[in-house]
Amino acid sequence: MDQEYMKRAIELAKRGEGYTKPNPLVGAVIVKDNKIIGEGYHEFYGGPHAEVNAFRNAVEDVNGAKMYVTLEPCSHYGKTPPCALAIVKNGIKEVVIGMKDPNPLVAGRGISILEEAGIKVTCGVLEDEVKELNDIFIKYITTKLPFGIMKTAMTLDGKIAAYTGDSKWITNELSRKYVHQIRNRVSAIMVGIGTVLADDPKLTTRLEEKEGADPIRVIVDSSGRISLEAKVLNLNSEAKTIVVVTERASKEKIKEIEKKGAEVIITPTKNGRVDLKHLMKELGERDIDSVLLEGGSTLNYSALDEGIVDKVISFIAPKIVGGEKAKTPVGGNGREYMRDAITFGNMKVSRFGEDVMIEAYIKRGE
Amino acid sequence: MDQEYMKRAIELAKRGEGYTKPNPLVGAVIVKDNKIIGEGYHEFYGGPHAEVNAFRNAVEDVNGAKMYVTLEPCSHYGKTPPCALAIVKNGIKEVVIGMKDPNPLVAGRGISILEEAGIKVTCGVLEDEVKELNDIFIKYITTKLPFGIMKTAMTLDGKIAAYTGDSKWITNELSRKYVHQIRNRVSAIMVGIGTVLADDPKLTTRLEEKEGADPIRVIVDSSGRISLEAKVLNLNSEAKTIVVVTERASKEKIKEIEKKGAEVIITPTKNGRVDLKHLMKELGERDIDSVLLEGGSTLNYSALDEGIVDKVISFIAPKIVGGEKAKTPVGGNGREYMRDAITFGNMKVSRFGEDVMIEAYIKRGE
Repeated sequence: MDQEYMKRAIELAKRGEGYTKPNPLVGAVIVKDNKIIGEGYHEFYGGPHAEVNAFRNAVEDVNGAKMYVTLEPCSHYGKTPPCALAIVKNGIKEVVIGMKDPNPLVAGRGISILEEAGIKVTCGVLEDEVKELNDIFIKYITTKLPFGIMKTAMTLDGKIAAYTGDSKWITNELSRKYVHQIRNRVSAIMVGIGTVLADDPKLTTRLEEKEGADPIRVIVDSSGRISLEAKVLNLNSEAKTIVVVTERASKEKIKEIEKKGAEVIITPTKNGRVDLKHLMKELGERDIDSVLLEGGSTLNYSALDEGIVDKVISFIAPKIVGGEKAKTPVGGNGREYMRDAITFGNMKVSRFGEDVMIEAYIKRGE
Repeated sequence: MDQEYMKRAIELAKRGEGYTKPNPLVGAVIVKDNKIIGEGYHEFYGGPHAEVNAFRNAVEDVNGAKMYVTLEPCSHYGKTPPCALAIVKNGIKEVVIGMKDPNPLVAGRGISILEEAGIKVTCGVLEDEVKELNDIFIKYITTKLPFGIMKTAMTLDGKIAAYTGDSKWITNELSRKYVHQIRNRVSAIMVGIGTVLADDPKLTTRLEEKEGADPIRVIVDSSGRISLEAKVLNLNSEAKTIVVVTERASKEKIKEIEKKGAEVIITPTKNGRVDLKHLMKELGERDIDSVLLEGGSTLNYSALDEGIVDKVISFIAPKIVGGEKAKTPVGGNGREYMRDAITFGNMKVSRFGEDVMIEAYIKRGE
């Protein structure tokens, strides 16, 4: 039963997707006599925590009840008073937790408050699912580096375009709609200048049912080749555009880009190009907790090679286009041997009509 | 309930996989008072049909019972007497059929015999599943051409090898074991000479639990470059090796290959290479109902382009190797635009550990 209620708490947590960043997604369920009497989730950044919402929504007296919460209740006075105290005050007798607070500075303190008040605490129920739910939050809170998600879309024979460069469309409408949901969940979206020159994308979030938030647009443009007419420099969007250059870009061009309202980040070079690791640090300092890479073949390999990718989301469409010269999701030099390949785990497969989506987490140090 | 029993009949039919060719896979279930009282399947080529086995295995009197059978009962005297008559004689009162006999010359005749005897007949229950079960049989009986299955294995970034050509291994052991099960189900396996020169494979079936039958090995070798030392020419296997050449191969080499015990087929040329369509006709005439293509990039594109592929089985491994110059499953010239891509339907996704397997049927004339 513990797992069932935790699953419900995870479901609730997901409702906040895209609106809580850089805070985690959290869900809470209050159970009494084997019946759910209260539910809540962290709905938006700065809003009440999941536990507080669950108390507010409770339809019966919560005294003596059991609480399920995906993340260790907080122990500090932030924008809201500590949830651990609220749980104690409300007379909850048992708390089941998905995972400890990933922030090493506070981990375990919420649990201590509960235990000191005589509340029975179980931690680690459906921990893997809960960790996945907050993959972005965990990475950012522990490293101050944004969580990197590489999104690719290819044919069943591994192509991101025909040999002519034509790529409209690989995936179906359902998949393309889902990409906008992913964009709504991340703080920033990153592409290479090649993609901007070839496709002139807007890189905004377009959702149907609810209002989406545009991600910050990050254009990796080592030598400052972007056209001042590019759509990403001429948008009516609440999110800014960041153009990332190296010293190879001329000072005049940098000024012109800034005049268009974009921010310019100048990074050191690595193999003659933008140092992506350095860039991620800069982005982290700007409160960007997550970056969706929708770059081309070349940027993707650099990103993987420099270790800024944490997760891959790969769409595979039921078509074959062939072509020895057609591009694939990841180009660059590539690894010399198959045994040196970058490996992934926790593969998850979903369907969007006839398209297949594979999500996988990078394995490090193996 | 009809669907449940038909599912069971399909399950039974699958037990014959690999042993009935070129006959279809058929399963039958006899039900009385909502209870299965007899089950059977077509176990091996030349053996009793599914219906007969179900009668033999019945544990109660079948008089007045209902029969579920995946394929229309046969109406002709072949290696066994017609099953439709056996059904009538046994007093079955109702028959539920997955699909009509695909052979246009006899389709419907078994049903007529049953209906004329006053038996109630329903046809088309789980028809799609049943058709998939007998995809090979249906193609071969209606066209005399082998059913073409293209098998590929790629990384999450669409590579079949690192840029150096190294490809050991892409998929995991579970996937590689499953490939041997596929080999056990087909009559022939086809590779290009490039694969033979590079990997010198044996192309035999190696199963763990049961004895497998080696497929006939078909080597597409337009100019007769195969080494007489190649493993496929020096095997202790009950199945023969066929080397397919064009007039570009020297007569001396052809003789030498034949001396090794292999058959040589000389086909007309198409774009300077073996005419694959012509080859499939020749193979069909040799009672080969199915060909598994395990070729490289180049052969795969020719095969798709010339329309000899009916189904694709694509393994995708959780690794990324990168490399602009690394090979992909399908090379060749490729299609010019994405809208001209070869499209697939009935995508089915399975897992082998962390590997993903996608099966899909080609869509024609769309």
